Amino acid sequence: MSIDLTRSAIERAMELAIEAANHGARGANPLVGAALVDPEGDVVALGYHRGAGSPHAEYSVLEASGLLDGTHGSRKAQGFPALGAARGPEDLTLISTLEPCRHHGRQPACTEVIAAAGVTRVVFGTADPTLSAGGGSSVLSGQGISVMGGVLEPQARDLNWRWERARHEDRPFVTVHLAQSLDARIAAADGTSQWITGTASRVHTHRVRQRIDAILVGTNTVEVDDPKLTARDETGAVVDHQPLRCVMGRRQIREEAQLKQGHAEGDGWLQLRTRDPRAALAELAEVVHDGYPVRHVLVEGGQSVLSAFFAEDLVDEVFVYHAPMLLGGDRHSLGDIGVATLDQAHHFRLDPAEDGPVSILGDDVCLHLAPAQPPRSGSDAPTSYPHPAQ
Amino acid sequence: MSIDLTRSAIERAMELAIEAANHGARGANPLVGAALVDPEGDVVALGYHRGAGSPHAEYSVLEASGLLDGTHGSRKAQGFPALGAARGPEDLTLISTLEPCRHHGRQPACTEVIAAAGVTRVVFGTADPTLSAGGGSSVLSGQGISVMGGVLEPQARDLNWRWERARHEDRPFVTVHLAQSLDARIAAADGTSQWITGTASRVHTHRVRQRIDAILVGTNTVEVDDPKLTARDETGAVVDHQPLRCVMGRRQIREEAQLKQGHAEGDGWLQLRTRDPRAALAELAEVVHDGYPVRHVLVEGGQSVLSAFFAEDLVDEVFVYHAPMLLGGDRHSLGDIGVATLDQAHHFRLDPAEDGPVSILGDDVCLHLAPAQPPRSGSDAPTSYPHPAQ
Repeated sequence: MSIDLTRSAIERAMELAIEAANHGARGANPLVGAALVDPEGDVVALGYHRGAGSPHAEYSVLEASGLLDGTHGSRKAQGFPALGAARGPEDLTLISTLEPCRHHGRQPACTEVIAAAGVTRVVFGTADPTLSAGGGSSVLSGQGISVMGGVLEPQARDLNWRWERARHEDRPFVTVHLAQSLDARIAAADGTSQWITGTASRVHTHRVRQRIDAILVGTNTVEVDDPKLTARDETGAVVDHQPLRCVMGRRQIREEAQLKQGHAEGDGWLQLRTRDPRAALAELAEVVHDGYPVRHVLVEGGQSVLSAFFAEDLVDEVFVYHAPMLLGGDRHSLGDIGVATLDQAHHFRLDPAEDGPVSILGDDVCLHLAPAQPPRSGSDAPTSYPHPAQ
Repeated sequence: MSIDLTRSAIERAMELAIEAANHGARGANPLVGAALVDPEGDVVALGYHRGAGSPHAEYSVLEASGLLDGTHGSRKAQGFPALGAARGPEDLTLISTLEPCRHHGRQPACTEVIAAAGVTRVVFGTADPTLSAGGGSSVLSGQGISVMGGVLEPQARDLNWRWERARHEDRPFVTVHLAQSLDARIAAADGTSQWITGTASRVHTHRVRQRIDAILVGTNTVEVDDPKLTARDETGAVVDHQPLRCVMGRRQIREEAQLKQGHAEGDGWLQLRTRDPRAALAELAEVVHDGYPVRHVLVEGGQSVLSAFFAEDLVDEVFVYHAPMLLGGDRHSLGDIGVATLDQAHHFRLDPAEDGPVSILGDDVCLHLAPAQPPRSGSDAPTSYPHPAQ
C-alpha cells in the first residue's frame, strides 16, 4: 500500500488514538479516537468522539486542525504543535480506531468529511460492524484514498466489545446506576432512602440522564419512590432533552405517578409489561423517542429489575456510587443474580472511559466498570460478526 | 511570648504539618506532623510519624535537618532547600501538630530530643491527651524553651479524634478490613470465597497485619475458613513480627485449627470468650504481646463479629476492598448493625491518611475510611478530656 510510515509509527499513533477514544462517553455510539500523523511519523493532532449527538472522531481531529475550513496550521490541537504551514492534507495520514462511517446520521458521513479535507491516506483499527454504517473503507478506496485496516485490531476492538454485542443482539446499550451504602444497601430497614448519596453524585447521575435515550425502573420503584425520572441540570432545572421514562413490570401504575406527568402512555413515558429484561429491551429497540431510535437505556432500579439485568448479562456499563455510610439490614441493591458458586461470579473491570474508573464525588466514591471480556474462542470470535472490510 | 513569627506564618506551617501528619499510618499511635520554620517564616523541613515503632515526627524533622548530629544544613529534607549553613537551631521554630511527648517508649522522649537539638521555640496544635505522655510543654518550658499551644487546635485534633476516643475508653484502636464484591458479598451462595479480592489487595492486607498488635476473627470464621492469621510479606514468607491471633466467641475451637499452629492458648493466640465486642477489647487491652500492650487490633471477620463492632461504634478505621465482581445471594459482609432508619446510619468520611482515601490495587479498588466526626457539643466537647497544657 502507499502509506509510507513505519509500522511502529502507525502503531504508536493508533495507541494514542485508542487512549483518546477512552475520553468519550459510552452509550448509543462506540468509543472512537483519531489521530493525524505527519510524514515524519509524529502525531500532530488527536480527536475523539464524545458520544451520541457529537461530532465523530475523524471530524473532530480534521476540524481541530483547520483542514475542514482551509485554515490548517493556524490552530493548536489538544496540546500538539500547530501543523506546519507548509503541510497540506495530502502530507497527512488519518488514523482512526474504527473504520470511518459512510452514513449520515445526526452527523455527516466520515467518508465525505475525509474526502472534503483532502486527506489521501487512512489507517483504521477495527472494521465497523454495523450493517448500515460499514463499508466506509471501500467508499474511500473508490475515491482514490489509500486505506489500511486491522492495525492493533484487538485493542481497538476491545474498546467497544460490549457495544458491538448490544448491536449484534439488536438491543440498546445498557448502563446501570447503583447508588448504595458501603455495604451495598439502598435503604435503611424502614425503607428510608432519601438521600443516601450526596449532591455531587446526583449531579453526575443527571449528567448521564441527559445523554441517554430512555430511563428504566421497575413498577415497585414507582410504587415506593414515585420518581420523576427527569434529567435536570445542576440548578435542578429540567433540561431540554428528556429521556423516555420507562417502567418495567406487569403491575398497574397508579394515575398520579409523577413519571406520567399527566400524560397518556406513549407521550414521554411507557410501560414495558414484562418481567423479562431481554423482552423489555427488544420492545425498547423498536421505539422511536424524540425522533431517534432508543439505543441507550439507563437502568436505575430497584433490586429485582437490576438483579434480572445482571443475571442475564445485559449490563454493558456500571456506575457504582458508594456513599460513605453503613446501613446493615436487608434492603440490598442486588438480590439473586444466578451465581451459585464463585466460578459463576459476574466479572467486571475498571473502565478507563470518560472520567476514568474512580471519581471522588463530594463525600462519595463512584466506580465506573464494564463487564470483563471473556477470552475469545469459538462462537464469539471476531469472524462471527460481519466484517465488511476484511 | 517570645516567638516572633507572624500568626499567619505559624498557621501556614501548621497546615503543612497537618498535611504531613496525614502521611502516617493510623493505629496504636496518633498521626503527628512537624515542621521547622526559619525566622522569615519559611518552612525549611517537614516530618511525620509513620506509626508505632517509628521515630516521632519531632525526631524525624530534627534528624532530617541534621540538628541531632551536628550536621545541620548539610542535607535536604523532603523537597525543601537545605538549611542555610549560618542557621543554628536557635534560629528555628519547631511546629508540631501534637504537644511533644515527655515519655520514653520504643522511642526517645521528644522533650529530650528537642532540648538536645538546641531548638528554643516550640509551637504545637493540640495537647497530648494521654496521662502518661502529656505535660511535655511544661517540661520544655522548665528548660527555658518558649512554648505555644493551641494553634489550629480543632484541625490538629481532628487528625486523631478516634484515636483519642480509643485512649479515653481504654481500648485498642480498631481497624477493620472488609474484602467484598461490588454488591458487598463475601462469598458465593455455596460459601466459596477464595479468592474474591486479588493479589494486590492481599499484599495490602498483609502490610496492615505487619503493623498491628492483634488480629481478631470470630469462631465461625475459624470453623469455616480455618485462616492462619499470620502476617506475610509479598513473597508469602511469614515475617518476624506476628500479631497476636485472637478468636472471639464462646464456641470451642478445634484442636487442628491453623491459627493455633500447635501452640497452647496464650502462646501466640488466644480466645476471647464473649460475643460482646466491648468486653473483647477490654480483655485485649490487658494483654501484653511481644513485650508491648495490645493497642491496635485488626478485625477481619466474619459477618457477625464485624456487624457487632460497627453496631457498637467501635471501628476507628476501615479499609473496604472492592473486587470488581457481583455475586448476589445472601453471604453479606455485614448484617444488622442497629440501623432502623436512615437518620441512624453510621457515617464515615474518606480518610486522607497513609495512602489516601482511594487506592487502585490491581483489579480492585480499596476505600480508606474513618468515622465521620459528629458535631461537637456538650458532653463530647474538648474540655471533657484532660488538657494539661491549656
